[in-house]
Amino acid sequence: MVEIDGLLQGIRDRNTPALAKAVSLVENARDGYEALLSELHATVGAAHRIGLTGPPGAGKSTLAERLILGYRTRGETVAVVAVDPTSPFSGGALLGDRIRMESVTLDPGVYIRSMAARGALGGLATTTTEVCDVLDAFGFDRILIETVGVGQSELTIAASADTSVLVLVPESGDGIQVLKAGVMEIADIFVVNKADRPGAERLVQEVDVMLGLRSGNAYRRMTPHHSPREMGVESPVAADEGWSPAVLTTVAVKGEGVEQLIDTVEQHYRYVTESGELDTRRRERLARHTREVVERNLSTMVWHEGEGERILAAGLEGVVQGEVSPYRLAQDIVAGIRKGGSAHE
Amino acid sequence: MVEIDGLLQGIRDRNTPALAKAVSLVENARDGYEALLSELHATVGAAHRIGLTGPPGAGKSTLAERLILGYRTRGETVAVVAVDPTSPFSGGALLGDRIRMESVTLDPGVYIRSMAARGALGGLATTTTEVCDVLDAFGFDRILIETVGVGQSELTIAASADTSVLVLVPESGDGIQVLKAGVMEIADIFVVNKADRPGAERLVQEVDVMLGLRSGNAYRRMTPHHSPREMGVESPVAADEGWSPAVLTTVAVKGEGVEQLIDTVEQHYRYVTESGELDTRRRERLARHTREVVERNLSTMVWHEGEGERILAAGLEGVVQGEVSPYRLAQDIVAGIRKGGSAHE
Repeated sequence: MVEIDGLLQGIRDRNTPALAKAVSLVENARDGYEALLSELHATVGAAHRIGLTGPPGAGKSTLAERLILGYRTRGETVAVVAVDPTSPFSGGALLGDRIRMESVTLDPGVYIRSMAARGALGGLATTTTEVCDVLDAFGFDRILIETVGVGQSELTIAASADTSVLVLVPESGDGIQVLKAGVMEIADIFVVNKADRPGAERLVQEVDVMLGLRSGNAYRRMTPHHSPREMGVESPVAADEGWSPAVLTTVAVKGEGVEQLIDTVEQHYRYVTESGELDTRRRERLARHTREVVERNLSTMVWHEGEGERILAAGLEGVVQGEVSPYRLAQDIVAGIRKGGSAHE
Repeated sequence: MVEIDGLLQGIRDRNTPALAKAVSLVENARDGYEALLSELHATVGAAHRIGLTGPPGAGKSTLAERLILGYRTRGETVAVVAVDPTSPFSGGALLGDRIRMESVTLDPGVYIRSMAARGALGGLATTTTEVCDVLDAFGFDRILIETVGVGQSELTIAASADTSVLVLVPESGDGIQVLKAGVMEIADIFVVNKADRPGAERLVQEVDVMLGLRSGNAYRRMTPHHSPREMGVESPVAADEGWSPAVLTTVAVKGEGVEQLIDTVEQHYRYVTESGELDTRRRERLARHTREVVERNLSTMVWHEGEGERILAAGLEGVVQGEVSPYRLAQDIVAGIRKGGSAHE
């Protein structure tokens, strides 16, 4: 535990090499990682976590770069966790691998980390939350969680953020399908990026229709808040009726609409803080995380510490031959865990 | 267990209402579902399972309809399991909900079932495998597993098939991103659907480049096997060097290329059967399934039968206040399972 103590001290001292070591320890579930996270727990909770998700090619990384610069101009420190759940290798399209801006990479107020699915114990979503906890405890003001894709794993990761931003582009052509695919419920802010391309206004309208913002209210279709320059940041919110998801447009490569996006993200954060929704979300996140840790510990007990692998290997041939069912073999393995050693009692 | 015995008899008698009841029992994890699956296990294994995956809008459902008709013409019975991992409701775009072809729905040799993620115990991939096991035991010759999207959950489901088909379309525009996103490793056959649209030939070339079929071999770029009509079914295979993924083109709405696709799927099935790869895949599937059943049983023990929920509820406030870490609380919950009742011993 000497190493853990050193890392904890390094994090308290805001030492970046110690941070990088701590993140690696957690990401790879090396000895002592749960002890480290356990010690850090009391100091987690000050950072604002912002999820950035959307289909490949939507320009999330470019937008993330612009958000970093915008936040730095406002004096906020920013960490980025770029997650690719579908890639067994480090995803080439992710911000962490492609960023080449010296203004960002040499700035101690910015930290960028790529994570890839490499059979993370207990799942990538759990590990992502834990890496964010380390960054949060270190003291970053904002944590951007960038995910590629809109599958179930990506949605789970996005749902762990305080504010979820979904990025779409006109040419993806499947805006509506994406929305149907369960993202509706978790996105707080919708961004139509590359809004200078054909089809942007139509996509904004489709999103609005999906959101029901304008159902039975067609005359509002051309209100100015969909223009990047004129868009008001007050309009999407009605605090007394809950948060109405905002629909914004950006041209990330030119920086257009980025300030408004940051304003809206901040506005959402104020809304969830003042309404008490942030406390509710964080309580749910902690309950979910505790459940995940329990299941990961059980999995470790049965497969890494217990007799599970031996019983499985011994019984598999019978299952293949149809003599024993997987359910019968599973019962034998589960019975073993209760009769097993007392290391965890 | 009277109900289970009745369902088992109904499945042996190839009674379709009994099949529907058995599938519902398994899908909803109702009392006795593991007993039913355990009894069926010895008779599972004759069906050829074919995964059909790809981005929304790729035309998978239309292709599935055509495959059903093609297999029926060849005298094979077909079951379809349409899975939407990202949808909490039954996905509107899935075959099960949109098929209106009387020739198919009134045919007792065809069975179509939609499944949606509704917090399935132990995950949708596990439940999908179990539903396929019921259909397999019932005696269907072919089982099509259709998934929407290319996220991690979808890939896990696709990887459980004997033959995995990835469907792409020219206008999706993110063919290469999809390929980067981990699908490469699991697809046995690539289909460029809507191949009469602009960009189809380019997408075929991109897929080929990704597959390395033509690296350093540029002169083969225009070989005729990419034309729907002329495509040979022998070309993609070299049995002595393993299976080289095939790249086919289809226009599903017109039925073009569908016969060649079925031929290639059959060819892949012969290849995996004769090479012994099918046995390897099924052994891995059974090992993976046994692991999943173990983890599901552990989860049930801790959350549904044990004291886990009570300990979590009692300790959560301390976690929220930062006084107790999720890791400490998780240890208390895990300790409870070992001291708990003996129902499973």
